[in-house]
Amino acid sequence: MSAPRVGVIGGGQLARMMQPVAINLGIQLRVLCSSPDDSAAQVVPDSVLADQTDISAVLDFAKGCDVITFDHEHVPGYVLAALVDAGHNVQPNPKALQFAQDKLMMRAALTEAGIACPRWKQISNAQQLEDFALTVGWPLILKSAKGGYDGKGVWLVETLAQGLEVISDIQAHGQEVLAEECVPFVRELAAQVARSPHGQCVAYPVVQSTQTNGICHEVVAPAPDLSENRAVAAQELALRIAALLDVTGMLAVELFDTGSELLVNELAMRPHNSGHWSMDGSVTSQFENHLRAVLDLPLGSPAQVTPFAIMVNLLGQDLDDLHSAFRHVMARDPGVKVHLYGKAVKQGRKIGHVNVIGDNLSDLTQRAWHAADYLTGVIDE
Amino acid sequence: MSAPRVGVIGGGQLARMMQPVAINLGIQLRVLCSSPDDSAAQVVPDSVLADQTDISAVLDFAKGCDVITFDHEHVPGYVLAALVDAGHNVQPNPKALQFAQDKLMMRAALTEAGIACPRWKQISNAQQLEDFALTVGWPLILKSAKGGYDGKGVWLVETLAQGLEVISDIQAHGQEVLAEECVPFVRELAAQVARSPHGQCVAYPVVQSTQTNGICHEVVAPAPDLSENRAVAAQELALRIAALLDVTGMLAVELFDTGSELLVNELAMRPHNSGHWSMDGSVTSQFENHLRAVLDLPLGSPAQVTPFAIMVNLLGQDLDDLHSAFRHVMARDPGVKVHLYGKAVKQGRKIGHVNVIGDNLSDLTQRAWHAADYLTGVIDE
Repeated sequence: MSAPRVGVIGGGQLARMMQPVAINLGIQLRVLCSSPDDSAAQVVPDSVLADQTDISAVLDFAKGCDVITFDHEHVPGYVLAALVDAGHNVQPNPKALQFAQDKLMMRAALTEAGIACPRWKQISNAQQLEDFALTVGWPLILKSAKGGYDGKGVWLVETLAQGLEVISDIQAHGQEVLAEECVPFVRELAAQVARSPHGQCVAYPVVQSTQTNGICHEVVAPAPDLSENRAVAAQELALRIAALLDVTGMLAVELFDTGSELLVNELAMRPHNSGHWSMDGSVTSQFENHLRAVLDLPLGSPAQVTPFAIMVNLLGQDLDDLHSAFRHVMARDPGVKVHLYGKAVKQGRKIGHVNVIGDNLSDLTQRAWHAADYLTGVIDE
Repeated sequence: MSAPRVGVIGGGQLARMMQPVAINLGIQLRVLCSSPDDSAAQVVPDSVLADQTDISAVLDFAKGCDVITFDHEHVPGYVLAALVDAGHNVQPNPKALQFAQDKLMMRAALTEAGIACPRWKQISNAQQLEDFALTVGWPLILKSAKGGYDGKGVWLVETLAQGLEVISDIQAHGQEVLAEECVPFVRELAAQVARSPHGQCVAYPVVQSTQTNGICHEVVAPAPDLSENRAVAAQELALRIAALLDVTGMLAVELFDTGSELLVNELAMRPHNSGHWSMDGSVTSQFENHLRAVLDLPLGSPAQVTPFAIMVNLLGQDLDDLHSAFRHVMARDPGVKVHLYGKAVKQGRKIGHVNVIGDNLSDLTQRAWHAADYLTGVIDE
């Protein structure tokens, strides 16, 4: 094995955050981007501008890569199939990836395996929606089966009329509709594991995540007040799903904690927002373990280097220029770790995150939120 | 302040290791390289191929950079002067940098300030060498005043005849000769500080470094069995030198510990091998604090995240392909952090390093050396 080359399809912040660990390990990254302004294109010399739906462009891109992996789940099946047909090593493999691309397939597979999910049903007409609502009550959740990403493609509907409107909309986009009960959860958790083609796995500490308008905003590692039994159960669940679906690389299992049980919400087969804390808080970050896993290299320790880590996302607000806030944030707190994605600020958009690690969770929480709020312009002192 | 751009002259591993922190902070790095194969050129999209002695090329390079800094000390004075004359912000400033470029100037400045150094003298002929040898005895050290880098440009001479030969050689290269006593040190220490233009400083834990054939091989942070008083004295010394010479960015002060006192060996005004442990072992690595300092941003905490960190350099040996050793090293120890520089293997050349952090120093030492020895092919099991 000489310096391996990993091809990443998609040039967002997840690909960008693979570059620091690739540099450290002497791994060559090649990224397929849609624009030279892409988050990853700014920092990866071997960035290729191409359309990910263009088979011949993607095949060209893949030449000379030891493995092809992803920054997102939206590469079309026919492109994945073409890569495999041409003999490329695709991780996670397209069969596994389907379960992250199609929420109906995911729900069916997990349910068949006896894994607890919110009650769900495929819906295509008014009668089915009415019947499902009789079972789970209003409000309920509707999702486009192949859309959804951070709150887009997910609708909370309160009435039949509202639901039918959403269904028409989803169907008008050529998609199928997944209906789910609105789970009365106490909090959301996430369990991340890395799994390699030869089957080695490591499980990260189970984290608690908090959303704002359906977008991940805060992650605490490990999840506070989670019993050892519960945490191990969540890790075992993630390991079981990784093996069941033959996932390689990072798998994030987002969970609803109802107080009495854990229900699977979403799956992501790539580094995930719930693991950004690991960049500063664990011996081996999720980005390093993703690269190691897809290259079938032995995995690194996911252990935390301090008792707690907290991550707060920078969601675009009023302040356009995050760097203008550097001086204050860095002067106030020499321990805060700022991560920016090189993206233009738009309302609600993920443009970066901050991590703080240490012993005292309430102190860390206060510091991380202050830095995030100041960087985004929510506060100015 | 929008996304700042830092221009780094020199494309070696130090510039390379600035890129991961630049990516995290959304700082744009531009590197002046001498070859597309340079360690940094491989990982920094905005790499410019140019000759660092070519004034107009360097001025072109500097356009649009908020600050110019360095991967090494070898940029000629007339190039530095041209940058300053053209209004560029150069950190460390050329006056400070002189003391890292010219060991005679450095010795004179430190001695004048009353800072303990090995006994030293500028030597230009046999009589002066003989006189100096009468004072300090044989063997003694000869250095080319403006050469020296990691053992090159430094000679241990045992006799007058041998000394005269070295002096002729140095003079033949147009350089002046610095003679120093051969200090009977117990061990070598290094004290690193970061200092910003507005005068903020942070001091890293004082480390112990061990050389092989004059090349840094192992660094332990903090230096074992160093009294609190001694450690603080070394940190204060480094802070004093930084202020005295108006150093900005990282300053490394290499010290001889004679058992009874600390003598200044060498200075480096850039990230330094003695601080590579900080990439995994401290809240803010020396590379991040170098960038923050030269940008006059508030500095990050240099605190260690675990009680101990150990770094072992990978010095080129028999094994050409370091990646071939990944599988074994990573499988044996999921906690080891491997850093490769993308450089071809040559005997004795620094091609990477490994870091291990934790609580138990003897365990860490064993693990770091095993990984380094296996990666370089010194051992094969």
